[in-house]
Amino acid sequence: MKATIITIGDEILIGQIVDTNSSYIAKALDKIGIATHEMISISDDKTHILETFEKLQNKVDVVLVTGGLGPTKDDITKKTFCEYFEDTLVENEAILLHVKGIIEGFYKRPITQINKEQALVPTKAKVLFNQVGTAPGMWMEKENTVFISLPGVPYEMKYLVDNEVVPALATKFERPYIVHQTIMTYGRGESLIAEEIEEWEDNLPPFIRLAYLPSPGKVRLRLTARGTNHELLLAEMKKQVEMLDLLIHDIIVGYNEDEPIEVVLGRLLTEDNLTLSTAESCTGGKIASLLTEVPGSSKYFKGSVVSYASQAKVDVLHISEEILEKYSVVSAEITEAMALSVQQMMKTDFAIATTGNAGPNKGDSDAEIGTVFIAIATPNGVFSQEFNFGQPREKVIDRAVSKALELIYKEILKK
Amino acid sequence: MKATIITIGDEILIGQIVDTNSSYIAKALDKIGIATHEMISISDDKTHILETFEKLQNKVDVVLVTGGLGPTKDDITKKTFCEYFEDTLVENEAILLHVKGIIEGFYKRPITQINKEQALVPTKAKVLFNQVGTAPGMWMEKENTVFISLPGVPYEMKYLVDNEVVPALATKFERPYIVHQTIMTYGRGESLIAEEIEEWEDNLPPFIRLAYLPSPGKVRLRLTARGTNHELLLAEMKKQVEMLDLLIHDIIVGYNEDEPIEVVLGRLLTEDNLTLSTAESCTGGKIASLLTEVPGSSKYFKGSVVSYASQAKVDVLHISEEILEKYSVVSAEITEAMALSVQQMMKTDFAIATTGNAGPNKGDSDAEIGTVFIAIATPNGVFSQEFNFGQPREKVIDRAVSKALELIYKEILKK
Repeated sequence: MKATIITIGDEILIGQIVDTNSSYIAKALDKIGIATHEMISISDDKTHILETFEKLQNKVDVVLVTGGLGPTKDDITKKTFCEYFEDTLVENEAILLHVKGIIEGFYKRPITQINKEQALVPTKAKVLFNQVGTAPGMWMEKENTVFISLPGVPYEMKYLVDNEVVPALATKFERPYIVHQTIMTYGRGESLIAEEIEEWEDNLPPFIRLAYLPSPGKVRLRLTARGTNHELLLAEMKKQVEMLDLLIHDIIVGYNEDEPIEVVLGRLLTEDNLTLSTAESCTGGKIASLLTEVPGSSKYFKGSVVSYASQAKVDVLHISEEILEKYSVVSAEITEAMALSVQQMMKTDFAIATTGNAGPNKGDSDAEIGTVFIAIATPNGVFSQEFNFGQPREKVIDRAVSKALELIYKEILKK
Repeated sequence: MKATIITIGDEILIGQIVDTNSSYIAKALDKIGIATHEMISISDDKTHILETFEKLQNKVDVVLVTGGLGPTKDDITKKTFCEYFEDTLVENEAILLHVKGIIEGFYKRPITQINKEQALVPTKAKVLFNQVGTAPGMWMEKENTVFISLPGVPYEMKYLVDNEVVPALATKFERPYIVHQTIMTYGRGESLIAEEIEEWEDNLPPFIRLAYLPSPGKVRLRLTARGTNHELLLAEMKKQVEMLDLLIHDIIVGYNEDEPIEVVLGRLLTEDNLTLSTAESCTGGKIASLLTEVPGSSKYFKGSVVSYASQAKVDVLHISEEILEKYSVVSAEITEAMALSVQQMMKTDFAIATTGNAGPNKGDSDAEIGTVFIAIATPNGVFSQEFNFGQPREKVIDRAVSKALELIYKEILKK
């Protein structure tokens, strides 16, 4: 049961936008046991698309195409589908009404010719109705391959994948069992972990594979088991994860790949009815924005003071000028003072504070580029740690954010 | 002059991570006139990689491979290169010293066996020396195709692309001219723009192509000209952009694809020596973190108060309880009060404030999900606007962030 995901668009091939759709689709397919064999990005060129379709015809069971369904002239997927399936476009009444509704109701303007054309679909296509946008999805079959076309706008694509594509594929195809288990670890490097679990890894059964997914400050370990006996897969996976936990218990923060640390943290805080605030300098509000991306975060996250300028540390966080002069803005003392101050201002149980120099140039302090201080204020006091996250700027900020989340997470676990 | 970019890793094919490397590489190649024909993501499977190499051999000039060079067991790219080039691995002295330096110097621990293995490279490979990491890049040639292998860690890949790959490719190949011009527009939808510029678009010369790149709240228009006469391309591009500017001048914010609005805004503020702060509720600090991602932002961005909880609006922004009760937390009055308050606290010329309900559930207010108020405080006063950005949560936050940046940008242009 194999699928190929195709994303269409010159903007992808010149690197102007990053393709996030393929990843979302692959994850959804994987959950129902459909393996993505390849992801391919190709240009808005009809010949190129047709050649690719022909290569895949009868080689894979499903071809999912995103992009090229928008309202504008550079969208050619629909015409290409017509040519490949020797079909013609007809106006779909239901879609036309829907498009009218969105344009006239939501955008409060009359429908344009270009909008009208979105209601055209190939006669042989099964329409995948797009409730959240104006571009319809299409399902067409040729011999042993299903070709599915979806709009490129991420939330429209997601809506159709979740509500139309996945249910339809799950009904049409018999699928093998795939069991994944991700182990989220924080604060230790890939190669060190590999050394520690080498013997365990060497003794994994052949139907279970391990992958390392390193990113700044954290490594995800992913186990994948494939087979026909679902119970066996689940049992063996459970056993292997328990063995692994014995080896690296100290760095494991969670087991759900859909649960980054900010989500796990949010659940802990909600359960224990605890609250959190942040005072951010070098991370510039990124910790706050990550925390608030989690639905329901208003239960435990009260807010943040982004004191990017030194003066803001005085004016908003009431750090005294003296201690700012005595210690540098990038110092343990100032970071701890910031954490205590925001904890008090926001009336929260815990607070995180960051200061540092992310580069490329030195800022208000003469701290080395890459230097970051992270302070954690708890109901019992405050502590801080110094780090050097190297370069470049993006890496320093990202590592500071994940390290801060790791420190607060471990602190809250202690309670 | 065609290239294919291959990313290797099961984690990509199951949708666990999004491939951002291909996009970076494609952009770098495009700048030196090398067109990316396809991007392909395949599994960590040796046979699959070998098959893909064979298909591409002599079909494209360059094959760039990322991933599968890390220190751990699931990395098989190096072995696969050896097999494809009928070669063997030998220890590279310089790389070994470099790896030792990083592990012992930076991580302060003895080098492990797994680290040592990173110094192994195929005998026929030209080593692309990785100054910023432990996995070396490789350049190997077979008949008419160059195969380049790069580590998957983004900042290591970027270092090698910028410092080794691009210079080497630029020297080796003669390349056609490609001229791109991106026009950044804010605040109008794709299909409306298309209507307005339809006649202009229909009359574009055949060697210039237009693409629409919509994202929440903004549309990028990209013109691409290809040919052998560089002067002609530049002249025609200039002419077409001037004609376009006459048609949609009111929504154009910039012309540099590498300059999102936060960068353009930053330059304007720096030039006029103006300062900015934000008070964020529904955007949760995302405006601040976007602004501070720009190097040098400390010159003009002073900080932010993320008053996520209503109480924080009282405690930190000193919004009186009365007016909070009189008007809802999601209202023009409160948003304007937040903007004025943070402007004063941070002593800035301008301030942005956001309140709203991003969903999925209603928060401290009974405002409809998707409702967002954005206020702009200027040296002369304050104003606000109400929006409904629909659903889901991620879209509401993203659209609120880009709309806020658009409003402040236009305000500062007026000065």
